[in-house]
Amino acid sequence: MKVAVIMGSDSDFKVVKKTLKVLESFDVEYTAKVLSAHRTPFKAIEFAKNADDHGYDVIIAAAGKAAHLPGILAGVSNLPVIGLPIKSSTMDGMDSLLSIVQMPSGVPVATVAINGAKNAGLLAVQMLSIKDQELKEKFIQYKEDMKSQVKDKNDNLAKMIREEL
Amino acid sequence: MKVAVIMGSDSDFKVVKKTLKVLESFDVEYTAKVLSAHRTPFKAIEFAKNADDHGYDVIIAAAGKAAHLPGILAGVSNLPVIGLPIKSSTMDGMDSLLSIVQMPSGVPVATVAINGAKNAGLLAVQMLSIKDQELKEKFIQYKEDMKSQVKDKNDNLAKMIREEL
Amino acid sequence: MKVAVIMGSDSDFKVVKKTLKVLESFDVEYTAKVLSAHRTPFKAIEFAKNADDHGYDVIIAAAGKAAHLPGILAGVSNLPVIGLPIKSSTMDGMDSLLSIVQMPSGVPVATVAINGAKNAGLLAVQMLSIKDQELKEKFIQYKEDMKSQVKDKNDNLAKMIREEL
Amino acid sequence: MKVAVIMGSDSDFKVVKKTLKVLESFDVEYTAKVLSAHRTPFKAIEFAKNADDHGYDVIIAAAGKAAHLPGILAGVSNLPVIGLPIKSSTMDGMDSLLSIVQMPSGVPVATVAINGAKNAGLLAVQMLSIKDQELKEKFIQYKEDMKSQVKDKNDNLAKMIREEL
Amino acid sequence: MKVAVIMGSDSDFKVVKKTLKVLESFDVEYTAKVLSAHRTPFKAIEFAKNADDHGYDVIIAAAGKAAHLPGILAGVSNLPVIGLPIKSSTMDGMDSLLSIVQMPSGVPVATVAINGAKNAGLLAVQMLSIKDQELKEKFIQYKEDMKSQVKDKNDNLAKMIREEL
Amino acid sequence: MKVAVIMGSDSDFKVVKKTLKVLESFDVEYTAKVLSAHRTPFKAIEFAKNADDHGYDVIIAAAGKAAHLPGILAGVSNLPVIGLPIKSSTMDGMDSLLSIVQMPSGVPVATVAINGAKNAGLLAVQMLSIKDQELKEKFIQYKEDMKSQVKDKNDNLAKMIREEL
Amino acid sequence: MKVAVIMGSDSDFKVVKKTLKVLESFDVEYTAKVLSAHRTPFKAIEFAKNADDHGYDVIIAAAGKAAHLPGILAGVSNLPVIGLPIKSSTMDGMDSLLSIVQMPSGVPVATVAINGAKNAGLLAVQMLSIKDQELKEKFIQYKEDMKSQVKDKNDNLAKMIREEL
Amino acid sequence: MKVAVIMGSDSDFKVVKKTLKVLESFDVEYTAKVLSAHRTPFKAIEFAKNADDHGYDVIIAAAGKAAHLPGILAGVSNLPVIGLPIKSSTMDGMDSLLSIVQMPSGVPVATVAINGAKNAGLLAVQMLSIKDQELKEKFIQYKEDMKSQVKDKNDNLAKMIREEL
Repeated sequence: MKVAVIMGSDSDFKVVKKTLKVLESFDVEYTAKVLSAHRTPFKAIEFAKNADDHGYDVIIAAAGKAAHLPGILAGVSNLPVIGLPIKSSTMDGMDSLLSIVQMPSGVPVATVAINGAKNAGLLAVQMLSIKDQELKEKFIQYKEDMKSQVKDKNDNLAKMIREEL
Repeated sequence: MKVAVIMGSDSDFKVVKKTLKVLESFDVEYTAKVLSAHRTPFKAIEFAKNADDHGYDVIIAAAGKAAHLPGILAGVSNLPVIGLPIKSSTMDGMDSLLSIVQMPSGVPVATVAINGAKNAGLLAVQMLSIKDQELKEKFIQYKEDMKSQVKDKNDNLAKMIREEL
Repeated sequence: MKVAVIMGSDSDFKVVKKTLKVLESFDVEYTAKVLSAHRTPFKAIEFAKNADDHGYDVIIAAAGKAAHLPGILAGVSNLPVIGLPIKSSTMDGMDSLLSIVQMPSGVPVATVAINGAKNAGLLAVQMLSIKDQELKEKFIQYKEDMKSQVKDKNDNLAKMIREEL
Repeated sequence: MKVAVIMGSDSDFKVVKKTLKVLESFDVEYTAKVLSAHRTPFKAIEFAKNADDHGYDVIIAAAGKAAHLPGILAGVSNLPVIGLPIKSSTMDGMDSLLSIVQMPSGVPVATVAINGAKNAGLLAVQMLSIKDQELKEKFIQYKEDMKSQVKDKNDNLAKMIREEL
Repeated sequence: MKVAVIMGSDSDFKVVKKTLKVLESFDVEYTAKVLSAHRTPFKAIEFAKNADDHGYDVIIAAAGKAAHLPGILAGVSNLPVIGLPIKSSTMDGMDSLLSIVQMPSGVPVATVAINGAKNAGLLAVQMLSIKDQELKEKFIQYKEDMKSQVKDKNDNLAKMIREEL
Repeated sequence: MKVAVIMGSDSDFKVVKKTLKVLESFDVEYTAKVLSAHRTPFKAIEFAKNADDHGYDVIIAAAGKAAHLPGILAGVSNLPVIGLPIKSSTMDGMDSLLSIVQMPSGVPVATVAINGAKNAGLLAVQMLSIKDQELKEKFIQYKEDMKSQVKDKNDNLAKMIREEL
Repeated sequence: MKVAVIMGSDSDFKVVKKTLKVLESFDVEYTAKVLSAHRTPFKAIEFAKNADDHGYDVIIAAAGKAAHLPGILAGVSNLPVIGLPIKSSTMDGMDSLLSIVQMPSGVPVATVAINGAKNAGLLAVQMLSIKDQELKEKFIQYKEDMKSQVKDKNDNLAKMIREEL
Repeated sequence: MKVAVIMGSDSDFKVVKKTLKVLESFDVEYTAKVLSAHRTPFKAIEFAKNADDHGYDVIIAAAGKAAHLPGILAGVSNLPVIGLPIKSSTMDGMDSLLSIVQMPSGVPVATVAINGAKNAGLLAVQMLSIKDQELKEKFIQYKEDMKSQVKDKNDNLAKMIREEL
């Protein structure tokens, strides 16, 4: 099982890095690529069209500003596309979010939070878990670990209260 | 394979109906239920916790205003959760959208457009298609049909131009 | 000289009609077409790629919600692309505007107001007037006519004041 | 009389600290805890359900982004819940504010300003003062002190004008 | 125990009516009054200053547009003030919400949703319940009733699905 | 003393009418005119430049969408310019408001609320009252009358409560 | 002739300083004061009520967040009130702007841009110029000087182009 | 063929510089000038009115906040006007964008992204290419170069992944 992680520019890597780390931590195979909806649209569409045949199961697409990449890939591919809105230097990412989430009827993009790179990876893991029981077990374990971190956070809070109040 | 379609109130049905129609048109089994993150939180969480064991593969959750339902279900369940923001009577659905999409790290909700009920259903179909080849074929056919509708739209446009200009 | 008027759906015609009327009133040849960035992306891109060779000088693209069409056409074509944001049923057209105007560096879209269909046509006329002196004369005349309409508006205002105050 | 101060993460402490300081300055007993609507929903709900029996009179809940914690606690508990929206790294806290304040009919959350941690504490004091006459006297004194601070501010203003203009 | 329900104009009654109905259903004594922060500021302030002495325990203040009434009353009174933002004819109530919720440090207003009139009443009931055990029992019963309404909603949903799908 | 009331189009009259009525009720002489910042900029500027010499003391300018008229008149005239943002069919008047109020350093426009036509007139009256004691007396009387209307509103509220609750 | 410059807190001085400098540069007498709509409402209202009798002609009021000060002063005084929205740490000043400009019918506040402190002073000068011919001459001269600064800006631009391109 | 690049202030040069660099890289002749819609409106209008006669084919106008310059020039000139919204210190450029793009019917401004200086230059090049075949060839080459940069970005991405993951 394989995930394609597409970004509009290599400058998005500083955010998307967290997506890739999540996939690695779950041992999910992935390919990361720069493909531009505006600079190399034919390549982008060609990739999306063949993604299923090339063994991908999920596409993650990250883009900022007038973020067309996720929607364009979703238009061509039959695979589920996860859209990751990148916070741009103006507008606080609101332009990216609306450009990705407000897709017309017929072509959904599964949108996560602005700069929600980690969640983009986790959502891909959840989708793959529909088919892959072993991965599902790992994800269930991941959720358990999150719970136990809340205990650490409470310890840390107690410590800060003792020290600062 | 089964989809749980949860809504915060029966008044959301007039929007969610389109989700259910999509699922029916793809012969995807579903259960539709009213569960409230605020009125019956224990029931909601209990449902989400057991959804995987009860044979569900995907949860779709629709909610408006301070729309907590999708996020709460996603917090409990290991299944992918699709969030459908319902347009409320004030704020044009912006409150619903942000309450659903801006999830914290660790708990993604796959958000679709405001009132994007049809897309919520299609996204579920795409997720299930990862595992179900037959369903994938149907979805590929669905996309082909959408293409051919563009031809009808062009015919209709040509007709309107002839008549109105 | 020829203008391509592309819209994402035939339902956009009720807005785009004003664009076409402007072009007709200036005797500018045009082709109107439904092409979808999401449903028929290959056709859309193919059209944009060949638009220059097919004798078009300007492309006007209208779209709503996550309005990718103008940006996608601009990515492929060397022709200037005018983007017309269509007001959608939610978000008052803000999603359309941001999805069209916030284009990344390298690929401009000449954006007009939300539902500013008439202005999309006039902007095309102004662009063509760079080359076509006769058309420029017509446009200068058009601006003169607008001026003189202000006199009528003043007469009308005076009448309303007499009658209603 | 006791206040429960719940936050979604220990990282919220740098804001919530001001709430705790207010409670201490009024000698109001409090418990501060990290409970997550998404990571430990059962614990969060369990806490809220029993808060009244455990002697709490008011719950303060702080959360950022898709801030579900205050609403979830309010859904379960019969106690008044004060919601404190935390400014997140994107969206300037607007997402937190709308997720907290736009609660559906039946389940109010008493929302204060974005990062208004001090006011969350003061509002709790005011609520408790309904029952506790001594606390009410302290709060009336607090308001008197605020008034007298305006005199200091005027002195400071006069000084700045002399020095800088 | 008594609640003061203050509104900026009698035109707000069509929204505030739901607040009054809630108070009546809980047998909470209330006084409803028009007081304007801008037209009769002395009266408004005088009222707030004496509200505690006159036996009020909570103030609910409803206002629209640049909604100053709740904040002004909160500045003078030591009682908790609940702010109810009224949706205005422009801006969808966003102006009312921000004018009420974004109070400066020292003077909280317990803000509910835009047009959340019912919740304003319920929040007052919850505050009074801190002191009044009998009222608390009624509120706990109210929450139980809400839960059981979810069953009716599910029945209704099932009926609509049978009929319309 | 004289007020110039300028609007961008005769269609603004349905809003601006209330401005004119206020001026009439205070016996303030005015001239109402359509002048367009975009269609007849020379006329608009010429008017503003000579307004002082022609005996005007205040200019009121109403405009919608990209509302440039008030700012342009303020750039040329030395008179105080009151800007009245007109609610447009999209964006709920936010575009008009920001286009009018966010003037650069050096050229203020005294902005009133979206569609705040009555207030535009009253503000002009207040400005003129700086010079005209008799007008000031009338305005003071006007404020007294507003106060007494609050009594009527309370009577009306009491009546509605009796009838509807 | 005298201007009252009121601010909600001495921390606003760093912005309001520019207002005072403008008034000084025009030799307009002013008094600067901290008065709080929430902390010292009686004093604030008392001041506004007597401002006319105390020889003031214009009130300038600066405030941030839920900025009630300008509106409250305008409710009491018959003098024109200029509202200066201060940019707050969250929401970029949008809350201040809406709280000040969206005043209800009957009580205008002459609003300038967010942090537009200089313009607040200039607007006061323009209002006073209605009565004071000498001040008007100074203001006309001020506008002439602004014009000539554009020449300097062009020289500077030319220099930057030579150096940097 | 010649482009006029107008900006509201020399402080805009730090953004507009990129526009000028694009024009230079395409060997397009240009004149850069500071002209203010508010400080020197007559000069601005005079310039726009004569721009065509003076051999200009396109006007680019950059402005921030209540950005009236592009619209005013468009009102007077028959040439196409490209509007470049400058990000201001408050409101993240949203005020500039709406003031420029939301032009009324009859007077279009071809708006690019907030701070989209490079795109303003490229759009001018595209407009001029309608007439100038040699320039068109250069622009087509420019687009080819952009495509090949995507290869470099992919190489860079691969390197970052190797190093950081």
